[in-house]
Amino acid sequence: MVVVNTRFLQACRREAVDATPVWFMRQAGRYMAEYRALRERYTMLELCRTPDLAVEVTLQPIRRIEVDAAILFSDLLLPLEPLGVPFDFVKGEGPQIERPIRTESDIDALRRFEPREALAHVLEAIQLVKRELDGKVPLIGFAGAPFTLASYAIEGGHSNHFAETKALMYGNPAAWHRLCDRLATMVGDYLVAQVEAGVDAVQVFDSWIGALNARDYREFVLPHTQKIFAMVAGRVPTIHFGTGTATILAELAEAGGDVIGADWRIPIDEAWARIGDTRGIQGNLDPTLLLGPTERLFAGAAEVLDRVDGRPGHIFNLGHGILPSTPVERVQALAKYVHQYSARR
Amino acid sequence: MVVVNTRFLQACRREAVDATPVWFMRQAGRYMAEYRALRERYTMLELCRTPDLAVEVTLQPIRRIEVDAAILFSDLLLPLEPLGVPFDFVKGEGPQIERPIRTESDIDALRRFEPREALAHVLEAIQLVKRELDGKVPLIGFAGAPFTLASYAIEGGHSNHFAETKALMYGNPAAWHRLCDRLATMVGDYLVAQVEAGVDAVQVFDSWIGALNARDYREFVLPHTQKIFAMVAGRVPTIHFGTGTATILAELAEAGGDVIGADWRIPIDEAWARIGDTRGIQGNLDPTLLLGPTERLFAGAAEVLDRVDGRPGHIFNLGHGILPSTPVERVQALAKYVHQYSARR
Repeated sequence: MVVVNTRFLQACRREAVDATPVWFMRQAGRYMAEYRALRERYTMLELCRTPDLAVEVTLQPIRRIEVDAAILFSDLLLPLEPLGVPFDFVKGEGPQIERPIRTESDIDALRRFEPREALAHVLEAIQLVKRELDGKVPLIGFAGAPFTLASYAIEGGHSNHFAETKALMYGNPAAWHRLCDRLATMVGDYLVAQVEAGVDAVQVFDSWIGALNARDYREFVLPHTQKIFAMVAGRVPTIHFGTGTATILAELAEAGGDVIGADWRIPIDEAWARIGDTRGIQGNLDPTLLLGPTERLFAGAAEVLDRVDGRPGHIFNLGHGILPSTPVERVQALAKYVHQYSARR
Repeated sequence: MVVVNTRFLQACRREAVDATPVWFMRQAGRYMAEYRALRERYTMLELCRTPDLAVEVTLQPIRRIEVDAAILFSDLLLPLEPLGVPFDFVKGEGPQIERPIRTESDIDALRRFEPREALAHVLEAIQLVKRELDGKVPLIGFAGAPFTLASYAIEGGHSNHFAETKALMYGNPAAWHRLCDRLATMVGDYLVAQVEAGVDAVQVFDSWIGALNARDYREFVLPHTQKIFAMVAGRVPTIHFGTGTATILAELAEAGGDVIGADWRIPIDEAWARIGDTRGIQGNLDPTLLLGPTERLFAGAAEVLDRVDGRPGHIFNLGHGILPSTPVERVQALAKYVHQYSARR
């Protein structure tokens, strides 16, 4: 008999749980030997685009770590290709967009597509993962938010200063809003398709949104992200995540999400106060603590749990993804510790 | 007769001024054609290490932009070479350290040096700039703070996640503190030498400190940065700058600085409230606003000045350095606008 683990979904609804649910951003990834073994044979894009491989990678952490949710192995940038913005992952440099978006005509040339066709392999992977999981833990689907997706498409890859992105945003607000509206509609459709394929919750990643202040967030981003959450609302629980967001948490909450992710730069109780008591919170341990000694790692986790003080609606996670140099044993120990420490309270 | 511009130093002392003083981080740099012309003939390190060239670059913005202070053209990393950590600037990739610091023996092998000998070219440039400026505007000296310097030395260059830096910090706190103590003593000596050579104020750059939360800042950084400010205190006004610091501004103020720098992620009045009323504030316009239209740039500057509301102790600056793609006319217009708008109040 399969024991159905419902902690994660209960916490999304701010219900009481037997122990704090935990999952980790990038819980499938280079820190695991079995992932690295696959990456020796396949490129990142091959893993993402081949349902059987995406399923295998999604399940790798489920087999070894006491996590309360699986997250589909995929990449934020996958929808860029059918939009007409092809890219690849370049070793040691991350994603590289072939022809970055820079002009209004680039924006107008973006293609509309049906995610059920163009990203059918993602939806197929979701169905296969759900079958494999057989209810043991819920499955989280995800997509990038308009600012973060736009920043990759405009900068051509990862960016430190978002100079081109903000130059377009400030310099041609009409074009910016047209781009973000297109991205929001696309992301909303894509997430709805993921829900229909079987995901139990979705997370919207606005990973780099901390580059904006509240004023600019409100003007340039909020309405678009709001549109995405409106499209998914009522179907499954939603999580809204970004980094460096201490000064815009209230705005992120306003844009949407049943649960708001916070990073380690702000104490989680202060973050929750800014988010408000109508939302759950996810976070917020510094992922680099997994690179240090266990005592300090556990002390950091205990501090997060103590600050939350058992209040329903907390999902334990890191403030950002697991880093490649992380020892897998440390991740295993952390998940166990969070469960034991929170159950004992 | 030279008109002596004292606005900047008055603001450092929180005295009333006729107009808000303004200068820009990286006001000398690639956005200026005359700088790019020099860079065609000399490397970045040649410019830094040749007093006549450093003087020329320092003065370039003074000739074209209504700034109220000059800042010595130099680089945070210059002291790494005499410490025994050689580096170079690699085109398109920024600084690269030849052999990053990773072990206790790397730390113990760091050399002590006398900045008046090893960095004599910097001190000579200061004396020459002071002569050229002839009191027209004050000259700011600077150095990197221990966390930021350590992060370059440990990571080997610019970093997104500071994984190696934090792994050392968490994993071997004793070694981390020994490294930061060495860096703090070195930086303090170097800044004192700069003051003796003639700088009118100093800025300590802890550019990447926003990667830490308040707890870690207090344990791993505060005592070291405090030591630097204690060494310079009472000689000239001091500015303490970092980015992404919304949640640690009170701790930065506690570490030291007559004036605390804030970036654009936090409204400047909120930042000042966190810093406290015994300090001045510097900032905090988003540098990417210089890439957009003038109206939006001016609106952003007006918002900063309105939020400060004429309170003595404000130095107008960007939240980080001028970006290379910035049009010089926009910088000229911004400085003028800040003076006119604040004088009219």
